[in-house]
Amino acid sequence: MDKKEIEEGVSLKINFEKRGGLIPAVVQRSSDGRVLMLAYVNSEAFDETIRSKMATFWSTSRNELWKKGATSGDYLKVVEILTDCDQDAIVYVVEPQGKGACHTKDPDTGDARLSCFYRKLDFEKGVLEKY
Amino acid sequence: MDKKEIEEGVSLKINFEKRGGLIPAVVQRSSDGRVLMLAYVNSEAFDETIRSKMATFWSTSRNELWKKGATSGDYLKVVEILTDCDQDAIVYVVEPQGKGACHTKDPDTGDARLSCFYRKLDFEKGVLEKY
Repeated sequence: MDKKEIEEGVSLKINFEKRGGLIPAVVQRSSDGRVLMLAYVNSEAFDETIRSKMATFWSTSRNELWKKGATSGDYLKVVEILTDCDQDAIVYVVEPQGKGACHTKDPDTGDARLSCFYRKLDFEKGVLEKY
Repeated sequence: MDKKEIEEGVSLKINFEKRGGLIPAVVQRSSDGRVLMLAYVNSEAFDETIRSKMATFWSTSRNELWKKGATSGDYLKVVEILTDCDQDAIVYVVEPQGKGACHTKDPDTGDARLSCFYRKLDFEKGVLEKY
């Protein structure tokens, strides 16, 4: 498939091969656009996400299909899947079904944090602070 | 540095080594949370972004430092940098200084598209449509 068709066409042709079978998937909350997590997706995980409408990834640490929420209950219902221009990155737009998306826990509540991106860089001090 | 310090601490310790020197950077528009692009960052690009406050990446196709906007004028001013729990993915929260962030052009206007994520999957038909 040529570059123009990939960038401007209607054919879904995710380029899993480009980086060894995995592409990054940004997970964004539907209600407010907050970025909840970033994980990796292979062809199998992508197909399973489309089939089940629940965000599914490939765990690069466990080397297995990873349906988010399968153990925690914190499923992420996928309402949109976006692809980028060259079809080597995607966004899952989701409605969280549980407390959050992160495996870490908020020390104040004891619940899973909503987002993995809970810290920002303080440019002046060079340290992380709460976001 | 142990896992707890990486996840809960204030030390900036981006794990570039985990995936061969590059981490994915999500670029998100400050005004409305729209995801504009996803690109890769190495240690040099990260430091240059902090120094210049303009989103800088490592081009994996050209194998060189890539300051977005240097040729197009479409700089992305970085107002926040977020890191995820295990510090192997980041978000640049930006204010676009030009027309857009994508290298493709909107056929209607001829300008750079605001976002690389301009198509979504039609789940029923299995094809891409405008987003």
